[in-house]
Amino acid sequence: MASVLRCSPKLRTAARVPAARALSTTARLRAAEKPYFPDEPTAPSVSTAIPGPKNKAATAELNEVFDVRSLNMLTDYNSSIGNYISDLDGNKLLDVYAQIASIPVGYNNPHLQKVASSPEMITSLINRPALGNFPSADWSHILKTGILKAAPKGLDQVFTAMAGSDANETAYKAAFMYHRQQQRGGPEVEFTEEELQSTMNNQLPGSPQLSILSFKSAFHGRLFGSLSTTRSKAIHKLDIPAFDWPQATFPTLKYPLEDHVQENAQEEQRCLQEVERLIKEYHNPVAAVMVEPIQSEGGDNHASPAFFQGLRDITKRTNVLFIVDEVQTGVGATGKFWAHDHWNLSSPPDMVTFSKKAQTAGYYFGNPALRPNKPYRQFNTWMGDPSRALIFRGIIEEIERLGLVENTRITGDYLYAGLERLSQKYPQHFQNLRGKGQGTFIAWDTPKRDEFLAKAKSVGVNIGGSGVSAVRLRPMLVFQKHHADILLESIEKILKLL
Amino acid sequence: MASVLRCSPKLRTAARVPAARALSTTARLRAAEKPYFPDEPTAPSVSTAIPGPKNKAATAELNEVFDVRSLNMLTDYNSSIGNYISDLDGNKLLDVYAQIASIPVGYNNPHLQKVASSPEMITSLINRPALGNFPSADWSHILKTGILKAAPKGLDQVFTAMAGSDANETAYKAAFMYHRQQQRGGPEVEFTEEELQSTMNNQLPGSPQLSILSFKSAFHGRLFGSLSTTRSKAIHKLDIPAFDWPQATFPTLKYPLEDHVQENAQEEQRCLQEVERLIKEYHNPVAAVMVEPIQSEGGDNHASPAFFQGLRDITKRTNVLFIVDEVQTGVGATGKFWAHDHWNLSSPPDMVTFSKKAQTAGYYFGNPALRPNKPYRQFNTWMGDPSRALIFRGIIEEIERLGLVENTRITGDYLYAGLERLSQKYPQHFQNLRGKGQGTFIAWDTPKRDEFLAKAKSVGVNIGGSGVSAVRLRPMLVFQKHHADILLESIEKILKLL
Repeated sequence: MASVLRCSPKLRTAARVPAARALSTTARLRAAEKPYFPDEPTAPSVSTAIPGPKNKAATAELNEVFDVRSLNMLTDYNSSIGNYISDLDGNKLLDVYAQIASIPVGYNNPHLQKVASSPEMITSLINRPALGNFPSADWSHILKTGILKAAPKGLDQVFTAMAGSDANETAYKAAFMYHRQQQRGGPEVEFTEEELQSTMNNQLPGSPQLSILSFKSAFHGRLFGSLSTTRSKAIHKLDIPAFDWPQATFPTLKYPLEDHVQENAQEEQRCLQEVERLIKEYHNPVAAVMVEPIQSEGGDNHASPAFFQGLRDITKRTNVLFIVDEVQTGVGATGKFWAHDHWNLSSPPDMVTFSKKAQTAGYYFGNPALRPNKPYRQFNTWMGDPSRALIFRGIIEEIERLGLVENTRITGDYLYAGLERLSQKYPQHFQNLRGKGQGTFIAWDTPKRDEFLAKAKSVGVNIGGSGVSAVRLRPMLVFQKHHADILLESIEKILKLL
Repeated sequence: MASVLRCSPKLRTAARVPAARALSTTARLRAAEKPYFPDEPTAPSVSTAIPGPKNKAATAELNEVFDVRSLNMLTDYNSSIGNYISDLDGNKLLDVYAQIASIPVGYNNPHLQKVASSPEMITSLINRPALGNFPSADWSHILKTGILKAAPKGLDQVFTAMAGSDANETAYKAAFMYHRQQQRGGPEVEFTEEELQSTMNNQLPGSPQLSILSFKSAFHGRLFGSLSTTRSKAIHKLDIPAFDWPQATFPTLKYPLEDHVQENAQEEQRCLQEVERLIKEYHNPVAAVMVEPIQSEGGDNHASPAFFQGLRDITKRTNVLFIVDEVQTGVGATGKFWAHDHWNLSSPPDMVTFSKKAQTAGYYFGNPALRPNKPYRQFNTWMGDPSRALIFRGIIEEIERLGLVENTRITGDYLYAGLERLSQKYPQHFQNLRGKGQGTFIAWDTPKRDEFLAKAKSVGVNIGGSGVSAVRLRPMLVFQKHHADILLESIEKILKLL
C-alpha cells in the first residue's frame, strides 16, 4: 500500500465557521478546516420524531415482502451527502455508523459518481463475466490499478469474492487445500482413488476433518464455514449446524492500557499459549488461525501488536496458516490502510480478507502455493463483480487524492482526546474507552448502551453498538475535526438525556 | 410470473437473409425472422487461431496476479453484442455458453444500457446500503416491480443474496431454523440456556446435527454448506471439510424418453423410495430436500414432472421442506420462466433459489413462518446489492417486452428438431439427446466431448460441457431461429473435424 500511504494529506486550513442552528460553547473551539463536502449540512437537523410518519408508512409497506425487524431507518440516499444520512422525513443525521462501517468516502461522493457513470462501469454492469473463464481484456489492468494497488505488503495475488463471508470461506478453502497438499508431499502428488471416492460422500479421507481456529467473540460471517468460526452472539448461530472447530480466548485488556501494561501482557501471553496448545492438541487438526485485528461485532476488543506478532510466530512454528480478517478494519479506518500495518510482523500474514469499505470482497495472498494445484478447485461462476472492483478503484483514488488515511489518523486522535475529556466529565458513562492511535476506530462501554443508541437519533446522530455494552464509532474516512466536534457535543447531549 | 407469461411474443416475421461468408445448403432453409439485435454479426467470424496472439500476451500478464488456469478466453465486452462474444483478437463467436448460462438478454443490451446509466443506478452503486438496516426508501418499489414480479406462484417473499452459493446457504439456514422451531413448538418458545451456551461452542443442542438431503451429481455451490450438498465432481470437493449429509440417487433416464416410458417411471420410483427412506432413517435428521429441476453442472440430468411431484408429496408427508435450486434453470431458459412451472405441483415448493440469469441472487418463499422468529438470525451487512436488483428489473422488462420466454420455447423446439436430424445423420456422435420441450436447455452425450468443445471455437462457436460427457447448450433468451441454424451448421462442421 506504499503509494497510498506516501501520499501527503490534502487537509486544507482555510477558516470555516459552521452556520446553521445555535451551537454550544465547544463549537467555538471547532477546528477550522475546509470540508471535503462543501455542500454537506453544517449540522444535523431533526424535524420529526424518528421514525417519522413517512418512514413508518413506508416501513409497513416494505414489511409485506421483506423482513423489517432489523430495520434501523428507511433512507433517502439521494439527499444523503458526505457524512450525513437523510431519512424519508427529511431528517439529516451525522452518520458515524456508515452502513455498518462500509461507506468509505461519503454519500454521493462526486468522484464515485463519475466512476459509476463511466462507459466501463456500464459495460461491466450489463455484461457480467464469469471471471474465471471469460475475464474482460482489461481485468488485469483493473486489478493492478485498483484492488492490487491496495494489496498489503508481501501479498501480490488476489481471489475476488462477493462479500465478507464468502471472502473468508474461500480463504479457508485455500488453507485446507494447502494443508492437505503439504501432507501429501507437494502439488504434483495425485489424489488417491479413496480420496476421490470418499469426498463424493462427504467422508474421510477426501473430505478431511480439518479445522480453522478462531477466537471467542470473533465475527467472520454467517455462511456455514464462516459461521463455524463466528463466536459473537448465540443469535447468530442458533439452530445452524456447525463444524467442530476450536476457539481460543481473545485477550481481555484492561483500560487505560498504560495503567495495566504488565497485566495485559500476561493476559495476551495466556491467550497465545492457549492458541499453541489448541493447534497442537485439537482433535480436528488446525489448518489456519483466523483473527480480526480488532474484534468488531464482538464488542470492539483490541489486542497489542505483540499479541499478533506472537500469533504470527506460533503459526509459523506450527506450520499453520495465519489469516487476518480485515473486513471491518481494512481500508483506512484505523489510521493505516490495513489495521495489521500497525503490527510490524516478522513476515506478512498468509492471507488477508477484505470487504465492506472496499465495496467488493476477496482475499489477498502472496505465496503461489496457495493457488490450488489444479484449476477449478477454487472457482465459481462470477468470482466477484467487476463493477464493484471499479468502485473500489475509485475509492482508492479518492483516498490518495485527499490523503484520507492520514485524515482518519489525525481526526481519530482529535476525537479520542475529546472523548477522554468527556469520560473524565462523565465517568459513569464511559468505561474502557479504547482505540487510541487506531484512527476513528473507537469504542467504549456504557451501562445504558441500548438507551444511549436509542436516543442518539433525536440529537441528530446515527450511531451503532457492538457486543453487549459497547458504543462503536465507525465514521467514514471523510470524517473531519468539525464532524468530531459535532459528535462530541451530541454525545454530551445524549448523556444528559439518560 | 403471470404477467411475464401472459405477454405475447414479439417475434417479427420480416424476411432477412444473412450476408457475410459463404453459407452451406442448410442456410437456405434459415428461418426468416427479424433479429432482436439488428447490429449483431450475421455469422461468426474467426480470423486467428484461438487463442490468438493478443489473447496470449494478455493472458500471460493476467497470470501474474490472477489464476488463469480456468481461463477460457479473454473477452472484449465492448465489441460483444447480442449472441456474439468477441475476443481480444477480433474473433466473434456465437455464444451458446453465455458466461456459464448467466447472460439473459444479450451482450450490450440497449435497454440494460439505459438501466445501467440511470440516476437510480448511480446512486445505488455509490451509496451501497446495509439492506437489513438502512434500505433505500424505494426498496419496496424496486422489489415489487422487479425481483418479486418474477416470483414463482405462491411465493411472495424474498431474501436477497449475492450469488448462487449464498442464496442456497441462506435458504438452508431458513430451513434449519424452521425445523428447530417446529420441534420446539412454535416461534414463541424461547431458546434454552443450554442451547444458548452450546452453540457458542458449535455443539449440540444449540448447533444441531441436522442435514439437507441432496442428490448424486447435484451442484448447489461451493461454500461450505452448499458444497456439502454438491456432488458433481470430486475436484469441486476434495480437501474441504464437509457435513455428514445424505445424498439420494437422481434418476438416470433412458433416451429417447418415449421409447422407455415404463423403465424410466420405475427408475424414478426407485429414487423416490430412496429419498423417503433417507428422510426417515438418516442419522442426521433431514430438514430439507434440495433439488435442481435439471441437474446442470452434473451432466444435464433430467427427470419427469412425476418425479418432482413425488418429491413434493414425500416432503409434505414427512414434514420436510422442499427447496428448488433454479440458479441455472431459472429465468426463462427452459421455455417457462421457472423450470418448476413445468411440473404442476400440488403445492408450491417451500423455497426457490435464483441467481445467474437474474444477475442477482436470493431465495423466494411464501410461508411467513420461514421468517426466523427473531430479527438478526438471517442477516448480513449487504444482503445483496440493489444495483443488481435494478439490472434484474431491467431484464424482466426486456423479457416481457420481447416475449423472450416464448421465444426460447419456440426456438428451443426448432433447435431440438434440428439436433434430432443431426443425431440421425451422425448417430455415433449423439447419445441421449435431451431437453425436448425444455426451451433451449438441451444437451447430448458424445464420446469425443472434450475434443468437440476444443474444436468449437475454430468454427466460430463458444460452447460448454457439463458432467463428463455432455455438450450442454445454454444460449441466451435472445437466441433465435437464425442463430439455431448457424449453431446446427457449426456442430456439423465440428463433427467433420473429429
